[in-house]
Amino acid sequence: MRVYNFSAGPAMLPLAALEQARAELTDWQGSGMSVMEVSHRGKAFVACAAETEALLRELLGVPSNYKVLFLQGGATTQFSAIPWNLSAAGASINVLHTGQWSAKAIKAARQQDLTVDVIADEAATGYSTTPAADGFRVDPTAAYLHYTPNETIGGVEFGYVPESGDVPLVADMSSTILSRPIDVSKFGLIYAGAQKNMGPSGLCVVIVRDDLVGRARPGTPGPLDYAAMAESDSMLNTPPTFGVYLLGLILAWVKESGGLTAMGERNRAKAELLYRAIDTSEYYRNPVALDSRSWMNVPFIGARPELDKTFVSEAAEAGLTNLAGHRSVGGMRASIYNAMPIEGVQALIDFMTDFARRNA
Amino acid sequence: MRVYNFSAGPAMLPLAALEQARAELTDWQGSGMSVMEVSHRGKAFVACAAETEALLRELLGVPSNYKVLFLQGGATTQFSAIPWNLSAAGASINVLHTGQWSAKAIKAARQQDLTVDVIADEAATGYSTTPAADGFRVDPTAAYLHYTPNETIGGVEFGYVPESGDVPLVADMSSTILSRPIDVSKFGLIYAGAQKNMGPSGLCVVIVRDDLVGRARPGTPGPLDYAAMAESDSMLNTPPTFGVYLLGLILAWVKESGGLTAMGERNRAKAELLYRAIDTSEYYRNPVALDSRSWMNVPFIGARPELDKTFVSEAAEAGLTNLAGHRSVGGMRASIYNAMPIEGVQALIDFMTDFARRNA
Repeated sequence: MRVYNFSAGPAMLPLAALEQARAELTDWQGSGMSVMEVSHRGKAFVACAAETEALLRELLGVPSNYKVLFLQGGATTQFSAIPWNLSAAGASINVLHTGQWSAKAIKAARQQDLTVDVIADEAATGYSTTPAADGFRVDPTAAYLHYTPNETIGGVEFGYVPESGDVPLVADMSSTILSRPIDVSKFGLIYAGAQKNMGPSGLCVVIVRDDLVGRARPGTPGPLDYAAMAESDSMLNTPPTFGVYLLGLILAWVKESGGLTAMGERNRAKAELLYRAIDTSEYYRNPVALDSRSWMNVPFIGARPELDKTFVSEAAEAGLTNLAGHRSVGGMRASIYNAMPIEGVQALIDFMTDFARRNA
Repeated sequence: MRVYNFSAGPAMLPLAALEQARAELTDWQGSGMSVMEVSHRGKAFVACAAETEALLRELLGVPSNYKVLFLQGGATTQFSAIPWNLSAAGASINVLHTGQWSAKAIKAARQQDLTVDVIADEAATGYSTTPAADGFRVDPTAAYLHYTPNETIGGVEFGYVPESGDVPLVADMSSTILSRPIDVSKFGLIYAGAQKNMGPSGLCVVIVRDDLVGRARPGTPGPLDYAAMAESDSMLNTPPTFGVYLLGLILAWVKESGGLTAMGERNRAKAELLYRAIDTSEYYRNPVALDSRSWMNVPFIGARPELDKTFVSEAAEAGLTNLAGHRSVGGMRASIYNAMPIEGVQALIDFMTDFARRNA
């Protein structure tokens, strides 16, 4: 029995990928070994990692002047690694501040020898908005502009890619990567923890333009130095092999499902269905500005907050799990990443309707 | 069909653990979700991580004044994290240099603001020895003494725990942890990548004495700051959940197998059997000093090096895989971690005997 799992991450994964992993968990490719048991430097795993990278490049349309790195430590470790790699000591960076994840990126950057200029801050709306596309000015001398395309806690998402001129654009795509087509060439660096749309936690993907590689500050640890990792095909040290393998299976599922165009259409349809149900309900409410609503994370509030826990537990009993809002904001939240089918969203709406009818 | 897998890491894992992981890969604990799909902050996974930690503490006898941390980035990331956490800027550390892994630890430490004093260096023997227990003098003002109990490439292992007085002793136990009982109280810090005796790559365990926690240098990234990770039960950011879960299954297997005393007896018997076969053979030779031979990694050289590749490929066909020596040294190497049964070692010896007979 599988459930519809609305967890914000680690999150629901495509069943086809999990079933393939299960089928070969003790005997991968007829080797008599699990993929977890083979040397990362052996031919079989090197080929697996290369195929995974090739498929990621194909699906995302990664230009040839970008490196794809398979790292560890999550996006949180990148909050420190990015300034080390992309900015000289004493440099300035620009940041768009849209919620709890951008706040963490700002805090980590400020621990380094760096000036962090927050050129847009959505505090006035309680971080329920994204800045207007022409609502900030990027300092042309900044080392880079950092932003968070989607805030998983606030459920706030940019409807556009910020224009940064010649300043490299850096994006934490942990919660949106692979959810729709993107133009990678607009970015200097894209990074993403795997545990939403790409696989298990413990793998972090970095896509970085060649001219930004090789500038790490002295003392940057090898596993966090993009040049050292690029030169070693992400095998300066032992990579998280099971995560890379499972990413490959998930990418194959994305491709079979029609690639990122189809994925984007599905995700748009799922989000529209859920927001329409919320907006037309008298019981539920989504707090985010219309033009900044996330396709991936949909927070909502019930008219009777004292029933939120009941909602979450009754939903779980009905096979709709992990619907509690983030512990810092409460309420409910439905995360509807790639692996969530529209049937799951419809089942949630049916439950929400019934719950509202019973409790309004 | 399973093989006897002699890979140095990632390495052979207990089949019982893999089979349990397979059985519940799409439906963990009847949740309708994979363990990879549940929130790391949910009750089920928090309990799983706590049980894993409790079992590790029980098996290793970790005193209550030590923290157990589940980190990412492997031992290689710790090569930098340890100096950041354990030494003030400009401090001195002492190091025992016994091979390629201690060399990497030394190199990473030297990239920091630190004086690295190599108080024993086995270069004169080509790193085929460990220093005599009374063959070095620890500077009592050093921030810590670092050593590598087992060198996986050279197959060199300390037969004793170095005496460091009041100077904290730091050990890279990646390739020996759980292979026999240890007295944790002798150490200031133990760290280990999981991918030999503990599970899949991508998880790194740190066991650190309380008085060494909370001294990280300013700017140390949160995921590498022992205090930040200890305060958050290793969940400052998303941990590698599947690795923590699988470590729990493997620890349960260790316990059912009789714990570390039984594991040590098994490992000693396996190593003695293999070294005896090598030493009594006229075809094979192990280059390591008798008192420094590793229980875990047994390198050996054939009398006709031009046949090494034939040995490795014929062995693989016979179900004995990953026997090539490290690319930097050539020859052969059999890694015989906890999950390798003595039957596998005997099968290797039978093959070696037959190969020597056919090719001597």
